[in-house]
Amino acid sequence: MHLYIALPGFPENQKTVIGRGVNIEIINTGTELMLGEVLNTHEYFLCRRLAEKGYIVSRQSAIADTPEAIESALRDAISRADVVICTGGLGPTSDDMTRQVVANLAGQSLIENASVLEHIENWFASRNRPCPPGTRNQALVPEHAIVLPNSHGTAPGLIIEVSRPHGAAMASVWLVMLPGPPRELRPMFDDQVLPWLMRSFKQPAPFVCRTIRTIGIPESIMQSLLIGPLSDLVRAGLEVGYCSRPGEVDVRLSARGENAALTVAEAEKIVVGLAGEHVYGSGDERLEDVVVRELARLGKTVVTAESCTGGRIANRLTDVPGASAVFLGGAVTYSNELKKMVLGVQAETLQVHGAVSEQTAREMAEGARKRFGADYALATTGIAGPSGGTPAKPVGTVFIALASDRSTIVVRQLNQFDRDTFKQVTSQQALDMLRRQLRGV
Amino acid sequence: MHLYIALPGFPENQKTVIGRGVNIEIINTGTELMLGEVLNTHEYFLCRRLAEKGYIVSRQSAIADTPEAIESALRDAISRADVVICTGGLGPTSDDMTRQVVANLAGQSLIENASVLEHIENWFASRNRPCPPGTRNQALVPEHAIVLPNSHGTAPGLIIEVSRPHGAAMASVWLVMLPGPPRELRPMFDDQVLPWLMRSFKQPAPFVCRTIRTIGIPESIMQSLLIGPLSDLVRAGLEVGYCSRPGEVDVRLSARGENAALTVAEAEKIVVGLAGEHVYGSGDERLEDVVVRELARLGKTVVTAESCTGGRIANRLTDVPGASAVFLGGAVTYSNELKKMVLGVQAETLQVHGAVSEQTAREMAEGARKRFGADYALATTGIAGPSGGTPAKPVGTVFIALASDRSTIVVRQLNQFDRDTFKQVTSQQALDMLRRQLRGV
Repeated sequence: MHLYIALPGFPENQKTVIGRGVNIEIINTGTELMLGEVLNTHEYFLCRRLAEKGYIVSRQSAIADTPEAIESALRDAISRADVVICTGGLGPTSDDMTRQVVANLAGQSLIENASVLEHIENWFASRNRPCPPGTRNQALVPEHAIVLPNSHGTAPGLIIEVSRPHGAAMASVWLVMLPGPPRELRPMFDDQVLPWLMRSFKQPAPFVCRTIRTIGIPESIMQSLLIGPLSDLVRAGLEVGYCSRPGEVDVRLSARGENAALTVAEAEKIVVGLAGEHVYGSGDERLEDVVVRELARLGKTVVTAESCTGGRIANRLTDVPGASAVFLGGAVTYSNELKKMVLGVQAETLQVHGAVSEQTAREMAEGARKRFGADYALATTGIAGPSGGTPAKPVGTVFIALASDRSTIVVRQLNQFDRDTFKQVTSQQALDMLRRQLRGV
Repeated sequence: MHLYIALPGFPENQKTVIGRGVNIEIINTGTELMLGEVLNTHEYFLCRRLAEKGYIVSRQSAIADTPEAIESALRDAISRADVVICTGGLGPTSDDMTRQVVANLAGQSLIENASVLEHIENWFASRNRPCPPGTRNQALVPEHAIVLPNSHGTAPGLIIEVSRPHGAAMASVWLVMLPGPPRELRPMFDDQVLPWLMRSFKQPAPFVCRTIRTIGIPESIMQSLLIGPLSDLVRAGLEVGYCSRPGEVDVRLSARGENAALTVAEAEKIVVGLAGEHVYGSGDERLEDVVVRELARLGKTVVTAESCTGGRIANRLTDVPGASAVFLGGAVTYSNELKKMVLGVQAETLQVHGAVSEQTAREMAEGARKRFGADYALATTGIAGPSGGTPAKPVGTVFIALASDRSTIVVRQLNQFDRDTFKQVTSQQALDMLRRQLRGV
């Protein structure tokens, strides 16, 4: 494994800052961002992770990955912030000039780091691939940088101290350089940068934050439900934030100070009491995580029979590590032929009631449960659109069935969204039916 | 309908800038961005729309929607840019101070705009809803602003001229203020802001841009493949950009000037010639779009038999409108029991070769094709991880099969990624096998 290389500037040597908030800025480099070719998921991830620990980013910037743009943005951020987190520009190709710009700003030379070079060589050797020419560049690091090993790629992260113009409140600014690919950046940030930050820039007072995830209540209703009951705690310093996705609302409760934990716990009790069965989880938990966990806890299994969701439910369940213990499999039956053959839906049912009907949904779920041998089966059939609607069954109409050994429940929903949102919301409603049944709510 | 209000500063009165590129910055306001509660889709949308017309954003910033943060970010951007596009902060609530900050920066008073007020009142009247108290604030606009009617909401957009310190190359900076909700911002930008920009800041010369999407060549190999053959065109002004996702690389070709179209067309010919069968599409096309379109063109059908991808392939195919014409359905067979029952995989095959094997993949594909009655069948079986690997079949091992009426092809891949990327890359490889077969490459 890798050594964590302690060099001058290592955080243990750094005076911990207490008593004032740390000013953090984020710089995302990438011409693809400026061209609108990709969504900036780094901004989202980093801001979220930092906020969970009580660090609020004061400014985020995105620029092209040219040395001029990077230098200009870094200089601007350094003039304002205590910590600047910069993503991208550490790859092997010739346009990855970030490391040189940073070394210049810090007044340090780039030196070849033997440990990083060895890691890069091992990386390619273990994959039986030749080490491409430019890749050795990634072993070049500013001489006094803290090197953050990259267990999911070749470019290491870097933490570099940059002196401020004298007279500033703090003597230096810390530049945190992270690799661009999310699967490299995310574990490096969680496992190395966040612990470093929390050691080096302690919160002036305890900070507690809790996100409660709910389903089935619109944001405006949730707000008017909570505003009165939470008002005393808000006066005492509680902050309440709402974040809504189609069909879902997160309630974010946070507080600072000696009583923060108590304040947030009391607020959570109020929210859970009022939102009740609509609360499905907390933090980053997804509904599929909760459903898989509940099934595992109860030793039960589930199968799926999807028409209009086209595999979305199965795909979401199998996104959860360990899903194979509770999810046996399922069928995607877009055609009527497959509904009959794979799930045993009666030809007469399809003819009399149509493929999008309560009866078909019921037979899909019951057929899947019986044939595939599971405790529960979820089935969906509906009209995702953009075409295919009728006056009686407009686009967005969907029937969702949940079969168990005791009964089969079918609900009718009208999910009038674009195709992707339709699939997501419908799969969410289906998984939520199962969650409620498993929890007995 | 709304009147487009011509006031001093209206673009027709403005000297059109030709001969140099226009420097555009974007500022996204919103505390929810700084807390990582939402993805910044405005950045993506605006950068993309602008790039399509040859305007490259030089910097994007996000800040909380406090008057101080907004003023500071606006001042910084004004000192650098010719056009500053600012999103959010125009709503009715008391923390929407953006309009006051902007009026101050422009040295203008806020006045109540009668046309906007009428629109707001009609908006609520036509919905039989009372006009909430703060909403009248949205009719307050800087006295010389160009008002952009909002046909999807109440807050108008604004274009405001701000004088520069004298001595600057251009006498003024243009601030474009847009409402935060995407369904209001997007049509306003497309229908009003972009035409204004193209009238006011004409491109110095024609601009042509083309993105070619490839699969199966790593970015570094793609670069070394293209760098020589494209070098003459690059010297003549061609710009080449690369954007990689796991397993895929986009090559973006752009040029300006009288010969732009010719230059880009020649470059495209070279890229397509060299990347050959690895080119699957262009522009925004996804692989699943191409596969569904090719199947439809040939009048062929496909079914899926997924183990380790857990429904990802079916889900991707059914994300394409009209998929039902070519996709009959599929099975997600996580358990061995379902592989045997639904797909007819032999018990002996599973026992002798294991569920993750060439033989099982082959029988899954052939069973699905025959039983479900399709022209093609795709099957996957592998170890997504994080656990379940063996020395002979480590985590990431996957067998992908494509069955047709002529033959069954099985490939073995080693996709050593996190679970989500594993599923995405494996589904990508499977869809690409089908694409190649359909195109005969």
